[in-house]
Amino acid sequence: MSKTTSLFVSPPAVLRPRLSRPLRLPSSMRPLTVDSLNPAIRNVQYAVRGELAIKAEEYRVRLQENGADHGLPFDRVISSNIGNPQQKGLDQPPVTFVRQVAALMEWPELANLAPQVFPKDVIARAKELHNETGSIGAYSHSQGVPFIRKNVAKFISDRDGYPSNPNHIFLTTGASAGVSLLISMLISKPNKSGILIPIPQYPLYTATLAQYSGAAIPYHLDESAEWSTSIDEIKAAIDKALRDGIEPRALVIINPGNPTGALLSQETQAAIVALCEEHSLVLLADEVYQSNLHRPATHPFTSFKKVVRDLNSPIPLISFHSISKGVSGECGRRGGYFECTNLSDDVIATIYKMVSVSLCPPLQGQIGVDCLVRPPKQGEESYPLWKEETDKTHKALAERTQIMAERLNKLPGVSCVDSPSALYLYPRIELPEKAIAAAKAAGKEPDAFYALALLDATGICVVPGSGFGQKEGEHHYRLTCLCPGVDQYVGKLEKFHLEFTRKYS
Amino acid sequence: MSKTTSLFVSPPAVLRPRLSRPLRLPSSMRPLTVDSLNPAIRNVQYAVRGELAIKAEEYRVRLQENGADHGLPFDRVISSNIGNPQQKGLDQPPVTFVRQVAALMEWPELANLAPQVFPKDVIARAKELHNETGSIGAYSHSQGVPFIRKNVAKFISDRDGYPSNPNHIFLTTGASAGVSLLISMLISKPNKSGILIPIPQYPLYTATLAQYSGAAIPYHLDESAEWSTSIDEIKAAIDKALRDGIEPRALVIINPGNPTGALLSQETQAAIVALCEEHSLVLLADEVYQSNLHRPATHPFTSFKKVVRDLNSPIPLISFHSISKGVSGECGRRGGYFECTNLSDDVIATIYKMVSVSLCPPLQGQIGVDCLVRPPKQGEESYPLWKEETDKTHKALAERTQIMAERLNKLPGVSCVDSPSALYLYPRIELPEKAIAAAKAAGKEPDAFYALALLDATGICVVPGSGFGQKEGEHHYRLTCLCPGVDQYVGKLEKFHLEFTRKYS
Repeated sequence: MSKTTSLFVSPPAVLRPRLSRPLRLPSSMRPLTVDSLNPAIRNVQYAVRGELAIKAEEYRVRLQENGADHGLPFDRVISSNIGNPQQKGLDQPPVTFVRQVAALMEWPELANLAPQVFPKDVIARAKELHNETGSIGAYSHSQGVPFIRKNVAKFISDRDGYPSNPNHIFLTTGASAGVSLLISMLISKPNKSGILIPIPQYPLYTATLAQYSGAAIPYHLDESAEWSTSIDEIKAAIDKALRDGIEPRALVIINPGNPTGALLSQETQAAIVALCEEHSLVLLADEVYQSNLHRPATHPFTSFKKVVRDLNSPIPLISFHSISKGVSGECGRRGGYFECTNLSDDVIATIYKMVSVSLCPPLQGQIGVDCLVRPPKQGEESYPLWKEETDKTHKALAERTQIMAERLNKLPGVSCVDSPSALYLYPRIELPEKAIAAAKAAGKEPDAFYALALLDATGICVVPGSGFGQKEGEHHYRLTCLCPGVDQYVGKLEKFHLEFTRKYS
Repeated sequence: MSKTTSLFVSPPAVLRPRLSRPLRLPSSMRPLTVDSLNPAIRNVQYAVRGELAIKAEEYRVRLQENGADHGLPFDRVISSNIGNPQQKGLDQPPVTFVRQVAALMEWPELANLAPQVFPKDVIARAKELHNETGSIGAYSHSQGVPFIRKNVAKFISDRDGYPSNPNHIFLTTGASAGVSLLISMLISKPNKSGILIPIPQYPLYTATLAQYSGAAIPYHLDESAEWSTSIDEIKAAIDKALRDGIEPRALVIINPGNPTGALLSQETQAAIVALCEEHSLVLLADEVYQSNLHRPATHPFTSFKKVVRDLNSPIPLISFHSISKGVSGECGRRGGYFECTNLSDDVIATIYKMVSVSLCPPLQGQIGVDCLVRPPKQGEESYPLWKEETDKTHKALAERTQIMAERLNKLPGVSCVDSPSALYLYPRIELPEKAIAAAKAAGKEPDAFYALALLDATGICVVPGSGFGQKEGEHHYRLTCLCPGVDQYVGKLEKFHLEFTRKYS
């Protein structure tokens, strides 16, 4: 909620009837306070849109409303806190093919009224989808349009070389909705059921666990080895949880990593699967960045579905994917899917029951999923433009990530793994003692204190490492690699860092 | 999940690597069973998409796949179980204005490529929205695009004659998502916090309460007085809850009613507000059918926001609205909003924190909300068509509801309140003793048994009253008034009812 725009919309005074009694709480009435809300809700924290994002929004409004008199040391706010490629100021262009199909789904009559403006394969695709889904103003099957799930299954089987069952696929309102549902189902005993999550993590996991009174069982990734995942770390975390009376129910792996951008080797993946077998863990594989590969030759992606099938393992696996990331970046459509592997029919029926309460995922999100899993093929009219657009975005992301990592690594007190995938960098910062003391005096985590100062000085909004988790005494922040004009942008980061370090030295 | 289409999508056999070991559960591994899931999830029931809807979907697939050889006594399935106006077979046309704006939002370039096909006000509207929201592929503010919330606030203040604050409005993924969030926040003590819900109710409420371990505190509506709401009934329900050790936290009112179609008088609304004051209840006002009024002269709608302000009452009120109902029927976009009245800033900040975890509502749902609250005005190019389309749908719904009620009331053993609003009828059926015995023998609720027989004989899918709640020994079903060809459709219902009654007499 933006606190600076508390405008009321008022009707003309003449319309207002006279009030019949004064506004006061009746003597018996207790007000609704935060303390009276569900305590689990009170415990939820979500740093990606937390204090910093709210302050950034306030700055944005101030810039917009005050013209040249804004009194801020910057002219624009750069939202590097969230992987939102198409937002204003970043303006990663959408893939034209996706939007053309979507426009025709909204108003099918366009194919007759303006046939010349659409490529032939787009018109054919929209017609096919329309025949299968009907109006996109109708609720679909709660699990998602059967035809689209069939296309997702084909995408998965082409990717992995193993069959995929459309009835085991659930289309979702972005990957988050699926993650939240699965966590809510797996937490069978409040505060006694736990889920293993990597540290650093995407804070959706801790937020959702807090909401459903599940215990987060943290295991640390190894920054010194490019944020790799250590089986021993996970084993130690399981042992500690068991000693604390927490039953581990599931293991979350984010691959490619968020915020780290790390990619798992197949050997590590196989060891993870074996560990899940040993401890009867459900594997929750967050694979939403699977197509954001900056150096695919040396750092390829392998799905957990393939690894589980290669090993012929019986572990229950849920794999999540999304249209919000990749190079489509269609966050606003809210589309994604998860595939269930090795789940019994009655567990799948229970998932179905739960998704049916929320009726169905948004149809334009489902259309987005179809476009993601069925891009134009070579020889089709849309292919050349689709290829050009997606290549360009892949290239820009890879180059920008590398340049940013190089330059950040040159700064004193900053070290940064040169991320081979996803959309982020997660630099580690050494903060001067005096800065840590100043942060403590201000009641802030030291890296949140740094990030707030960065926002105040430059308009750049990042997320402090304390929002993702880190080892005691370490400090990081996550920033996206989505901002164009990398030279000017990183220049601001560098200047700020040097000034901040000088100020507190 | 459709059980008859368990097709697998398989890759060419040559792609499959050899399996390295047999598929078996390692000796230590416990499988994931339904019994090991969150027990609260196991308790969730949702009849609107339950057994009947699944069977209807199976019939639909069978009709589609088997051509003339389907072997069923009907040629099409009629989904009267769910208020989904635009679904195949019902085909209520979307409002053209909404879809034109939506198409331009998907592909703004259309305004340059094919300007002649769009009315001028549509192009202006899309440009304005695009300037404010940016790309619809970007996440918006988690609470919804500020500009659209401002338009919602104006709609509310024009409707009620009282100011509305855009910062107290949350755009949602349909009304359901908002209801679910609020219930999860208000249940502070598992199994000890309760929410008053009308019986019959829309089963979202009991499903969500079960999910969050909240107690449903039922109060009965009075069928003999057109399903009116009795303050004494609610008081008695509160007293009983308190005796049972349940703290009532909130009162759900569905107005216009679902499944009843009843409309509250302003006097009843005032008494409800007083009751909320007396018992410190949050009022959850489900007002999604507010524009589905069949006889507005005698049965008008008054919002609870207006009543609360007229009375200058301090009760916390959350009012829900949706784009899925009304005459827009844009269910697939997943759009809606709720407005918070008399909520403290920190409670609103807590709601904001929770919605930020799921990032934002779908942008096309938000665009749908904007079109709902800002329809074309008289004098604008789109107005005549918009007026014609919406008038036609209003008229069809009102006429169809009346004809269906009249004919159902003529059937022996059927009585049906002639609903003045919403999209449904909720006839009461007297079932023969023998039918009740046959249902018991089949392990079904008697009205579910009746509804299954109706589906088997006619392809018409309704929801049994047992899914909405009813008094012991009573039987009902809910059917939508959305199906065109009312004569043939009701004819089938009549024929079935007479045969069923004869069979079990």
